[in-house]
Amino acid sequence: MSGTALIGLDWGTTSARAYRIDASGAVTHERSAPLGILQVRDRTFAPALAGLLGDWSELHVPRLACGMIGSRQGWIEAPYCDTPASLDALGAGIKMVPREDLGIVPGVRTRDADGMPDLMRGEETQILGAVDAHAARVYAVLPGTHSKWARVEHGRLAAFMTFMTGEIYAALIEHTIIGRMAETRPQTAFDAANFERGVARGSSGGSVLHDAFGARTLALLGELPGRGVADWLSGLLIGSEIAAARRFAPDMRSVTIIANAELTRRYATACAQARVDPVMAPAHAAARGLWRLAKHTGRI
Amino acid sequence: MSGTALIGLDWGTTSARAYRIDASGAVTHERSAPLGILQVRDRTFAPALAGLLGDWSELHVPRLACGMIGSRQGWIEAPYCDTPASLDALGAGIKMVPREDLGIVPGVRTRDADGMPDLMRGEETQILGAVDAHAARVYAVLPGTHSKWARVEHGRLAAFMTFMTGEIYAALIEHTIIGRMAETRPQTAFDAANFERGVARGSSGGSVLHDAFGARTLALLGELPGRGVADWLSGLLIGSEIAAARRFAPDMRSVTIIANAELTRRYATACAQARVDPVMAPAHAAARGLWRLAKHTGRI
Repeated sequence: MSGTALIGLDWGTTSARAYRIDASGAVTHERSAPLGILQVRDRTFAPALAGLLGDWSELHVPRLACGMIGSRQGWIEAPYCDTPASLDALGAGIKMVPREDLGIVPGVRTRDADGMPDLMRGEETQILGAVDAHAARVYAVLPGTHSKWARVEHGRLAAFMTFMTGEIYAALIEHTIIGRMAETRPQTAFDAANFERGVARGSSGGSVLHDAFGARTLALLGELPGRGVADWLSGLLIGSEIAAARRFAPDMRSVTIIANAELTRRYATACAQARVDPVMAPAHAAARGLWRLAKHTGRI
Repeated sequence: MSGTALIGLDWGTTSARAYRIDASGAVTHERSAPLGILQVRDRTFAPALAGLLGDWSELHVPRLACGMIGSRQGWIEAPYCDTPASLDALGAGIKMVPREDLGIVPGVRTRDADGMPDLMRGEETQILGAVDAHAARVYAVLPGTHSKWARVEHGRLAAFMTFMTGEIYAALIEHTIIGRMAETRPQTAFDAANFERGVARGSSGGSVLHDAFGARTLALLGELPGRGVADWLSGLLIGSEIAAARRFAPDMRSVTIIANAELTRRYATACAQARVDPVMAPAHAAARGLWRLAKHTGRI
């Protein structure tokens, strides 16, 4: 078990993932467990960590974690940093768990021009791990339940926006009349043509509250097959999200997509349709971000 | 039981309502029952109608119905009329149920500039009953599960748009993380101040997919009390709907609101905030529309 310089932990709400990272920043081993903070009873995080790490517990190397483990409901609270959030600021905000040699990275808070707040916790580390730290300005997106679009300038997280796209998609398919029109879920077969039709509609700048009803009317009039409803709706919401992200970032020409293969495919297709070049993120974005932070703060 | 010239029926998905209307168009009696088309087993609509009417069945007057009773799942299908839909066209589309002296008003179909279809069934009758039939151009809204905004020109239904506002509100409150932030439902106490904050945010032209997340971040940061979350979200969605309706109808200075007291209050508040004068619809809009159609087609 030699060669490990850091144990990185991406510890979220539903699951926890651990990485062994060598001195060059490469992930050599990876473990995960359903030990997210909502799964751990009575906040017994020490035994949960021991269970996740197993024999890695014997490694005498620093440990650094990001994600909801640093929230008020987590192990120890690492209060939000404000944007622009540099590696310096995030490093200064790391909270140590007593007797564990475990540091926890803070989340990040931003406010838009109207003073409306937005929050992330865990994604800041993935973003800073995935993008070029020296670029003057780059964009990244983490699609999912709560999609995050971020602008990074000279390695600092300058601004970001959350979209409830994944969660609203699920609520619409499972709990509204649209679901009754849908014959299959996109998990079973991806209907690219109807997905792209949905993206085109969502990108056109209309209201999601109105456009979503189109899934019903198109299906009712025989202009959208039942098996295409779910992917049409998925495209509609993702297209609408990208259109709003472009208003947030008018100069965005390309975006780094940090996601699994399925979501990467959808967002890459939709971004290309919106004339934003999709760039695949390197693997293990969270581990890379944790390593970068550990190095920046002199832990390794 | 004299003096009745028409029995009007507003027969929807979940409930059915019957009106006795005199020769002047006034509603003299009203009955309702949970006999919507999804509630009637095996499409046994004749006994359902007899049950709803009770002793009114003995009245030898014409009967005219609007709503989902004319859909493919209803008693007899009255195919959609296209916009612009005049009283002539709606009257010509009335389908007769054999052996019942019951006419069923058709629904209306429209398409926007992109060819996207939209549908209504029942609301066309309410709208034509509620607005001034001689005005050159007037607007009406029927808020609810599926809000309908309509433009009427010289008594013809020229165009309309559906918004899934009510259904999406319920899905977000009941089936997303936002519900976990909400302490009470607006049914228990209307929080006007936070409703208006939500309207202001929704009117600002942003993305609902993003703005909805504000309910969570504001609550998490202590900037929105749990008891205000539901009304803030309600305001956000209604404000967003009105902003989109204003793009649909840039010349709209006032709008007739056809709704119950609770929804009228919300929409009147939000419309006034958006500088659109709210006008209360007269009572019994469906009955008025049915009477107008019965008269136009020579039934009475």
